[in-house]
Amino acid sequence: MLATDKSRLLLTQGDVAGIGPEIIAAAWQSLVRFSHPVVIGDVQWMERALALRAPGSRARSVESLEDAKPSPTIVPVIQATSEDLSNVEVAQVNGSAGKAAYDFLCRAIDETMAGRAHAIVTAPLHKQSLHEAGIPFPGHTEILAARTQTPQFGMLLYAKGISVIHVTLHVALRDVFALLTKGAVLEKIRLLNSILPRLLGRRPRIGVAGLNPHASDGGLFGSEEREIIEPALAAAQEEGIQVSGPIAPDAVFVRAIRGELEGVVAMYHDQGHIALKLLAGHDAVNISVGLPLVRTSVSHGTAYDIAWRGIAREGSLIEAARIAARLAGFSIELPSGKAKDTS
Amino acid sequence: MLATDKSRLLLTQGDVAGIGPEIIAAAWQSLVRFSHPVVIGDVQWMERALALRAPGSRARSVESLEDAKPSPTIVPVIQATSEDLSNVEVAQVNGSAGKAAYDFLCRAIDETMAGRAHAIVTAPLHKQSLHEAGIPFPGHTEILAARTQTPQFGMLLYAKGISVIHVTLHVALRDVFALLTKGAVLEKIRLLNSILPRLLGRRPRIGVAGLNPHASDGGLFGSEEREIIEPALAAAQEEGIQVSGPIAPDAVFVRAIRGELEGVVAMYHDQGHIALKLLAGHDAVNISVGLPLVRTSVSHGTAYDIAWRGIAREGSLIEAARIAARLAGFSIELPSGKAKDTS
Repeated sequence: MLATDKSRLLLTQGDVAGIGPEIIAAAWQSLVRFSHPVVIGDVQWMERALALRAPGSRARSVESLEDAKPSPTIVPVIQATSEDLSNVEVAQVNGSAGKAAYDFLCRAIDETMAGRAHAIVTAPLHKQSLHEAGIPFPGHTEILAARTQTPQFGMLLYAKGISVIHVTLHVALRDVFALLTKGAVLEKIRLLNSILPRLLGRRPRIGVAGLNPHASDGGLFGSEEREIIEPALAAAQEEGIQVSGPIAPDAVFVRAIRGELEGVVAMYHDQGHIALKLLAGHDAVNISVGLPLVRTSVSHGTAYDIAWRGIAREGSLIEAARIAARLAGFSIELPSGKAKDTS
Repeated sequence: MLATDKSRLLLTQGDVAGIGPEIIAAAWQSLVRFSHPVVIGDVQWMERALALRAPGSRARSVESLEDAKPSPTIVPVIQATSEDLSNVEVAQVNGSAGKAAYDFLCRAIDETMAGRAHAIVTAPLHKQSLHEAGIPFPGHTEILAARTQTPQFGMLLYAKGISVIHVTLHVALRDVFALLTKGAVLEKIRLLNSILPRLLGRRPRIGVAGLNPHASDGGLFGSEEREIIEPALAAAQEEGIQVSGPIAPDAVFVRAIRGELEGVVAMYHDQGHIALKLLAGHDAVNISVGLPLVRTSVSHGTAYDIAWRGIAREGSLIEAARIAARLAGFSIELPSGKAKDTS
């Protein structure tokens, strides 16, 4: 039975050759302040990361989550792989590290689905290590979807009180047009609207970006606003969703940082990411939507170029943990944005 | 003969029904500190604006620039139109105001081309007022190009030490692909490279954005980087231009604000404008390039919605004046960016 005054968060180590273990170590003092964190990973690599980033703390192997007693100096770790990770080299692609990252995530999913934890916060894994291990998934989200048997899911990006969801993502700009449909836009509006109340504690205000400059300026530059985006907006408004648009792509994020919008639907990758990278620096957070569990993630990768040199920043992980706790229903102040309880 | 210790800047009032006159009034105290400003406009509307925004200053009609003695309390105005502007209503489209805005600009061009002023700084005009006056140009840039007989010209946007030029601008996103050529990209790199040394006092570092997410990630998402942008980059590098790319569109502005780049070539409107609007707020500046004179402009419009209510902000105008003075060869600190003399 799970009952704590703080959220029990499972932090998966991700790829141990990357920056995952050390950002967990660096974040630890912050994490224990507002949550009951437990590392799902490998004990020896956790010891090594603590020696580098938090020499006053020690890893303690625990058999079950019930035994975990996190404190500023004690980092409970569930040894969640039987892979031998002693030959993994830092900053190198390695099949064992890939398999281990997969094992960590699976264990975290199973524990959370069984009701023994409130949420999962994932450190980055490496697609190629996963591939070398023969794992048939490109990344976290697909593993989560498969293991929880979720057909429809998505990802939103959160930074500075603004949540962004993309209608299209990793495709050539030229291919965006064929993928942009009323149904696709409406689905993303609904996904945002379904998760934001848990983050905000109230109904969100969602803005939908246009596709073209000035949102086509009344049809001067393009017709997708009239033909695709406006019908999707009308359908969402009929469902009672508080949504406005199409808003000029260069204005929608300005309105959001002014506090007029909490959610933004972006039409393509860079429309959202240019703004997010400028606003968030390294502290953006990924939030899975549509899954039967709460999962957040850092927004960066394994960063092999700086891994295990003691300089990787923990800001995104701390923010991801705060968001996870809040989505799990715990009262957590979100310090860096406007998305605070107004109740 | 023009010889002053400060730059002689001609400030055109633009559309008097918009915010032009009052932002000149609000900016005046700042302008006289670093320049020798003269208003090219209408004396009565200038008086009215000063009463609203700078009641301690008075407009003084002068016949010629030689007679202009600007001071914190004296605003010299060249009465540059014979239109009767007494019936113009604030925040209303008006053909007389449109004709007057045209007259102001023409007078400023003629004075500057004759060597009696160093640069022009324009307040916004209203396209529709211009149209009602029967002026066959859509805006400032086209008037400037026609009157100075300049066939090739462009516009760059400056904010916080970063200068941005666009390969395509006011077209549907769908039409960007046909307009994106090696020649067009190369031309924009050259234009940036031709003007930035005057702004920076040294060779600029220019970054060229990709078109696709992650600049196509090695060809995974699109081929324009390899087929169009890379050949343009190679040609520019052969000309000795310090240019790098294609850079992921969501990374290029982050690198610029870190001080790694002073110039950015953007492929389409929102690629540049999403970043600029977030970075600059209301203080972005337009800079004409390719003209035989120096001309800068505020980056906003006439803002009829807030005109003559005493709340329009003067930041963009002051910044535009600073940039103009600097481009004219005067030593002006650029306070808001990294683009300072390193000599």
